[in-house]
Amino acid sequence: MVKRNINIGVLGCGTVGSSFIREFLFKKDIIREKTGIEINILKVFDKDKNKLRRFKNIAVDGPEKIIRSKEIDIVVELIGGIDYAYEFVKKSIENKKSVVTANKALISKYGQEIFNLAKEKEVYVGFEASVAGAIPIIKSLKESFIGNKITKIFGILNGTTNYILSEMFYKKIKFSEALHMAKKLGYAEANPKLDISGFDTAHKILILSYISFGNLFSINNINVEGIEKIEPIDITYADEFGYRVKLLGICKKEENNIEIRVHPTLLPKNHLLSLVEGVNNAVYVEGDLIGKALFYGEGAGGNAASSSVISDVVDISKKLVLGNYIEEKFLSYETLSLKQFDEIETKYYFRFTAIDKPGVLAKISKILGDNNISISSVIQKKDNPQRAVPIIMLTHKAKEKNAKKAIEQINKLDIIKKETTLFRVEESLF
Amino acid sequence: MVKRNINIGVLGCGTVGSSFIREFLFKKDIIREKTGIEINILKVFDKDKNKLRRFKNIAVDGPEKIIRSKEIDIVVELIGGIDYAYEFVKKSIENKKSVVTANKALISKYGQEIFNLAKEKEVYVGFEASVAGAIPIIKSLKESFIGNKITKIFGILNGTTNYILSEMFYKKIKFSEALHMAKKLGYAEANPKLDISGFDTAHKILILSYISFGNLFSINNINVEGIEKIEPIDITYADEFGYRVKLLGICKKEENNIEIRVHPTLLPKNHLLSLVEGVNNAVYVEGDLIGKALFYGEGAGGNAASSSVISDVVDISKKLVLGNYIEEKFLSYETLSLKQFDEIETKYYFRFTAIDKPGVLAKISKILGDNNISISSVIQKKDNPQRAVPIIMLTHKAKEKNAKKAIEQINKLDIIKKETTLFRVEESLF
Repeated sequence: MVKRNINIGVLGCGTVGSSFIREFLFKKDIIREKTGIEINILKVFDKDKNKLRRFKNIAVDGPEKIIRSKEIDIVVELIGGIDYAYEFVKKSIENKKSVVTANKALISKYGQEIFNLAKEKEVYVGFEASVAGAIPIIKSLKESFIGNKITKIFGILNGTTNYILSEMFYKKIKFSEALHMAKKLGYAEANPKLDISGFDTAHKILILSYISFGNLFSINNINVEGIEKIEPIDITYADEFGYRVKLLGICKKEENNIEIRVHPTLLPKNHLLSLVEGVNNAVYVEGDLIGKALFYGEGAGGNAASSSVISDVVDISKKLVLGNYIEEKFLSYETLSLKQFDEIETKYYFRFTAIDKPGVLAKISKILGDNNISISSVIQKKDNPQRAVPIIMLTHKAKEKNAKKAIEQINKLDIIKKETTLFRVEESLF
Repeated sequence: MVKRNINIGVLGCGTVGSSFIREFLFKKDIIREKTGIEINILKVFDKDKNKLRRFKNIAVDGPEKIIRSKEIDIVVELIGGIDYAYEFVKKSIENKKSVVTANKALISKYGQEIFNLAKEKEVYVGFEASVAGAIPIIKSLKESFIGNKITKIFGILNGTTNYILSEMFYKKIKFSEALHMAKKLGYAEANPKLDISGFDTAHKILILSYISFGNLFSINNINVEGIEKIEPIDITYADEFGYRVKLLGICKKEENNIEIRVHPTLLPKNHLLSLVEGVNNAVYVEGDLIGKALFYGEGAGGNAASSSVISDVVDISKKLVLGNYIEEKFLSYETLSLKQFDEIETKYYFRFTAIDKPGVLAKISKILGDNNISISSVIQKKDNPQRAVPIIMLTHKAKEKNAKKAIEQINKLDIIKKETTLFRVEESLF
């Protein structure tokens, strides 16, 4: 006898949680008509009782009432953070419940353990909403591109930082001013550190790399840089050279090496990723069959996340109704190793702040040459000879460790008046 | 007892068929590792025996050997065209086989009948490869966006025409020259009529509309215009006004009305769709939860299609292994009616060819005004007063029937020396 009723319990009733419950109830009939499955939200819990007021008839007074309930098939975890979420998700799975979560910090840290436990207990874990909001990138990588060997993933995965960079570009304002705007408009949290430091992007690119390559690397082993040090002058010069500055999560696979990194990146202006403005997200993927593909959409907000949570809930409901359990495995490349950041090769943008006198360029170039870095173009602004002026250089491909060594040496020159700024450059992908 | 072996038969061994077989065999182990399912290509048929030579060990000498075979679970139809494909697909389903097809003409014409039959026989039909090659737009609309009310779909769905329009823009060449280039490079078929006339795009937008709204409308009831009449001068003037010219499949839903149409469209330059160049495809979607989303990727070629065919094969294999049958329904809006093309409202681009003398603009404007069309901008080139010169106008929103009526009246003026050119304009979507 086919079970056509699926019961859900929701943990967390904040922006995403309340939006999910509202939208799900609103679309329940449509979903039943499309799938033939009756999915009910049976219970909801939040530690803040005020948030439960709108959902009185389904509110419960403790998470255990959901996690241990015999009636619940799927637990939707939308509380965020790590500690409680980890505990609740684990207990839910141990109680043979499937889980849907939007928690990128959780999955990027404990994904391996959670998925192993889920297989053992023969339940499913959906996490589409954990990366890039409404964009179906998890499902596409797992299912649509299953016949592909993925080689490259580049993502604009954090709306707050992308909004700030758009504002800095269009309004010629400083980082601090743009951040202030973002806070005022609700695009940045009161404490925006996780976003602007690049760590939120790092959680997400680690998840995308995990489902594409089967290895979940630790955030402690990858390079993560944020956007705090970007100055308006860099955005202007990048523009002169034909580039936009974007905070990218980058993942590249080459033979048995994988490169994962997060940093501000100069991208050619005509690249589709350069045209992603404001709080939007986008993911660019390369694979052997698909060639080059890009997904664009809203990366944040209750509705965008709800769209993905609903999709996961329906998918898991279908699988539960279908009966047998199929375990899901991300292909594990056992020999895959994480490339040391110092070993990566990329093009660079350098901004030196030097005294404006003859011979300066020669001194800088000599050190770069000695470190195997060749220059592709230079902008040297003429100014008052008493004052320090910016010298901007783009390089050909060079090794990260050489770039760092060169900069260290150059920073020690007495003609150099400020720490040198360094950004990495990606070539056109299309 | 779970059945963990799925057997496939392939009909058609052309570009897509041979690429699918090659790539599937290449990825077979990975797919088994990821899903735990052993999927075998057991048989392949093509009426051209030469094409079967590379696959001798699995070649069969008639389609019936696949369609009626007791061993086959999934028939992959890659022969294209309508007549045989229709017969083979129907017979396969009648024989309780699931079907995967890349055939847009077939699905856009017989989709309803095929899906009904599939439900009756409790088998599945996959058709991801029928629209936009490697882009997972079918799966995203059906599954990822299941919680959304979709309101708008705009697609660049034909690589040949997009290549031609890119060439015309960048190289300032005529349609016929660009078409010649496309043929030389293998981007256009010897008989490219289906592509350049817009009918291939029409098949695809009808399918996207079908899975989003549940109603499969006939190609005979929608407006389909191709790119044959676009002149370089129009591309240049569009550029001056800040637009690119793209062949779009357009589908909009408003309350109980749906608008489906295919025609060259002026799109703002900074719209992501405007930046889709060459043989690539892209689909822009609006929904109540996702907001605005865009998918970009390779729209044609054996590899791109194979990626989608493999995805469908694996998805259906999983469902077959899971056991019970879940019917899939596209939500049917029973009250949904197709808007008459004459009733649509849009902005227009007009190019008049008129004698260059005083009062010409007044005469044209008067007729437009009489037909409730107001002008938003004009470019009138000065030239030799003896010769006819182009006058280009952009209008505010107006009704299609009024635009047509006005053009008919204007074409009759003795100051007008050539048929007036008309294109429709879409406003910025982002």
